[in-house]
Amino acid sequence: MSTRLPVQPSDRFVGRRRALAAALGPRAALVFAGGLRGRNYPANSYPFRADSHFLYLCGAALTDAALLVHDGRCELFVVPAAEDDALWHGEIPSASEVCRTTGVDALRSIHELPAAIASAGGARAVATLPSLDPLTRARQAALLERRWPGGRFPGVDGLDAVDLELADAVIELRLRHDDGALEMIRRAIEGTAAAHLAGMAVTRPGLFEYEVRAAMERELIAREMECAYGSIVTVHGEILHATTHHNRLSNGDLLLADVGGEYQGWASDVTRTWPVGGAFSPTQRALYEIVLAANEAAIAMVRPGVRYRDVHLAAARVLASGLVDEGILRGDPDALVERGAHALLFPHGVGHLLGLDVHDMEDLGDRAGYARGRSRSEQFGLAYLRLDRDLTPGMVVTIEPGLYVVPAILADARLCEPFAQDGSFARERLTRFSDVRGIRIEDDVLCTPTEPVVLSSSIPKTVAAVEAAVARGRV
Amino acid sequence: MSTRLPVQPSDRFVGRRRALAAALGPRAALVFAGGLRGRNYPANSYPFRADSHFLYLCGAALTDAALLVHDGRCELFVVPAAEDDALWHGEIPSASEVCRTTGVDALRSIHELPAAIASAGGARAVATLPSLDPLTRARQAALLERRWPGGRFPGVDGLDAVDLELADAVIELRLRHDDGALEMIRRAIEGTAAAHLAGMAVTRPGLFEYEVRAAMERELIAREMECAYGSIVTVHGEILHATTHHNRLSNGDLLLADVGGEYQGWASDVTRTWPVGGAFSPTQRALYEIVLAANEAAIAMVRPGVRYRDVHLAAARVLASGLVDEGILRGDPDALVERGAHALLFPHGVGHLLGLDVHDMEDLGDRAGYARGRSRSEQFGLAYLRLDRDLTPGMVVTIEPGLYVVPAILADARLCEPFAQDGSFARERLTRFSDVRGIRIEDDVLCTPTEPVVLSSSIPKTVAAVEAAVARGRV
Repeated sequence: MSTRLPVQPSDRFVGRRRALAAALGPRAALVFAGGLRGRNYPANSYPFRADSHFLYLCGAALTDAALLVHDGRCELFVVPAAEDDALWHGEIPSASEVCRTTGVDALRSIHELPAAIASAGGARAVATLPSLDPLTRARQAALLERRWPGGRFPGVDGLDAVDLELADAVIELRLRHDDGALEMIRRAIEGTAAAHLAGMAVTRPGLFEYEVRAAMERELIAREMECAYGSIVTVHGEILHATTHHNRLSNGDLLLADVGGEYQGWASDVTRTWPVGGAFSPTQRALYEIVLAANEAAIAMVRPGVRYRDVHLAAARVLASGLVDEGILRGDPDALVERGAHALLFPHGVGHLLGLDVHDMEDLGDRAGYARGRSRSEQFGLAYLRLDRDLTPGMVVTIEPGLYVVPAILADARLCEPFAQDGSFARERLTRFSDVRGIRIEDDVLCTPTEPVVLSSSIPKTVAAVEAAVARGRV
Repeated sequence: MSTRLPVQPSDRFVGRRRALAAALGPRAALVFAGGLRGRNYPANSYPFRADSHFLYLCGAALTDAALLVHDGRCELFVVPAAEDDALWHGEIPSASEVCRTTGVDALRSIHELPAAIASAGGARAVATLPSLDPLTRARQAALLERRWPGGRFPGVDGLDAVDLELADAVIELRLRHDDGALEMIRRAIEGTAAAHLAGMAVTRPGLFEYEVRAAMERELIAREMECAYGSIVTVHGEILHATTHHNRLSNGDLLLADVGGEYQGWASDVTRTWPVGGAFSPTQRALYEIVLAANEAAIAMVRPGVRYRDVHLAAARVLASGLVDEGILRGDPDALVERGAHALLFPHGVGHLLGLDVHDMEDLGDRAGYARGRSRSEQFGLAYLRLDRDLTPGMVVTIEPGLYVVPAILADARLCEPFAQDGSFARERLTRFSDVRGIRIEDDVLCTPTEPVVLSSSIPKTVAAVEAAVARGRV
């Protein structure tokens, strides 16, 4: 049992539900909140995270609830309180309080849902999106007569046509953030900024990564926030999804911290890379400045009508050009990027949508991230790009170029040989940069009708600002 | 993908697997590690927590792995690394490293599991325990031809006879902790002690509960630990499972903190209650001393052969006796406890098993917590007791009496009237104690052949020690 009412005024949610209803016409939609998920035994659950579509439309985190939007009305179906709920969980909010804070027209028992589905056109006619919680999904499939694969998340390819209509309507809404959404994202980023400043200030040689992580996540918890994703805090920045934090920091290491807070379900996603010893070495600084230039060039392109893949490629060209200057790549940067040479040191995409999810709407797969008619490239590197839409005002995207010396890539002849053979990849030059393993600089950027707005701009980013923030902890 | 190798020597796990094999005879057992579970989209998962039975026997946290114990051998089946695993997750440990650290005889591909099951006697003959992860459980049911209910966790009642044999063998082993287990539990408690000291030191009026929580959990994260369960840090201690932390601390409040760290899967579970203003009021102190006396009396009973329900009832009698002294209950304490009058203010059980799970082996229901032939009482209060076994050396139990003024209980005529009518509950006397909502004092206690050992003894507990620890933060 978990009940958290919205912290924002109900008109935020009423407005979103009206917009959804307008898009769906007479079609009813049923969106589930998901349930608690046991961690090591049924009663010891992971912290409850309501499904993002539910949070978007309702603002409340209510375990096992469902929201029915139909015929100009919105009804919220909840599990009736058990006899001893008040003993274990305290007072349950009244129906009128739930209705007032969420703006729904009625609060009903979940047991009345089958009848409501029947009145809304019947199971096959009511649109829904599969809950990520397998138990909810099984109930949902039974109620709505969906033939989703047992257990496995069906993904967007497994959806019925009516559900795809709902997915598309939700995507249209959630792609462009309203003021309420932006307020929450900004709030999440505030906590994230405090976390990064705390991480920089606490860093010193001899600590373990988990000690820096603790100082950073403390700032999130102290603001009633959670981590939007598993924190990466590592001196092995070349491990892109490092989930362990057991290494000891040494003088001369760079520490890469990809840490973002989540506030009331809304995410932030920021990476900074700073020198453990307080000052970048000349080689670290040289590569850092290249990544920073790519970050700034890409940010400057976050404007309406710009294709996000072009933002990615622009960042890649700045990186390639810098690598040419350092003698690591050789040739014309544009031609190198076209062939994918930059991906040997920048193998991932330059960013993604940000919103209620850190990769916003990734439960809907590339249907959210890719415009109709576009699909993933097969080229190494570009294939990992999660977003290829034309930017529009209200979109928030991350911009996160990086440079990494990844042993698994350098050991892969299929990837390296084409560039080594013709001399465009001067791998031996990398030995000069042996004190760099991974650098990433990631910001959260709002597309507006005019200038891009860097929501994470308060977090130190230039060499001087980062060094000063690390030095502050040593005073 | 998540791979964490054991931090303890492999002979720990070899010994446990041998003991299990000896208990099972020729019967093969297959234990699953469970998988990553998506939080808001498939790739954004909750931190991986391997199933406890797997951790107990293997020491490693390997997503989607399975351990086959059969015929004097132990084989570990793992998912072969994907082509780009090394890119995202770094170097994968070699097969020989996995074998060396876990002590298994062979590392094999999970794709060979069906053949191995066939050689081990066939699907219906191989014993298993249902994974808490629904996707693993569905695969497991298919592989081993179990008829578990789709989705829902089957619980021990839904198990086949061969699986109950395995459950009983595992319970026999895990009930009595070996030296390796005790080493890990002590380590978890060390971090928990630091967390409680930090929480006491940071407390001051005006803070929010989440700020104290942040100071406490920081200490866990900084020791490479996680929370063994959702932290309770609240000025509303009367909400037994408070999961929110948004209240502001006021002078005159008591703060109840039930926070325990988990180290490499091993749990701790400690509660302390301290005054926000630094000093207990006379009324708070009076009730605190009653809870403390119950805590100490119960701890003194943690000896071989003592029935745990008697420990619970002894604590209840000390509480009842103190409540009689304060005029809140009236009559003979023994008779009051027999009728359940104490449960109006102490509605839960005095504790539970502690080990890899904070309620150890609760996935096996009361089969773990209750000795054969014993079952839950139907009396309010006693019905919530999770443990009713005779204590034996090597068991670790929590001892956690408390006193709570729970509105839901006091408003429940069925619970209160029997005691109010005959005058044994002098409810109006509670108004004198209006600055107390909930007090709990919880320790982790090891049963030895001689004296009980309080593993959490370093955490301040007496009125003077708690006040001093809170004062330390104000210097």
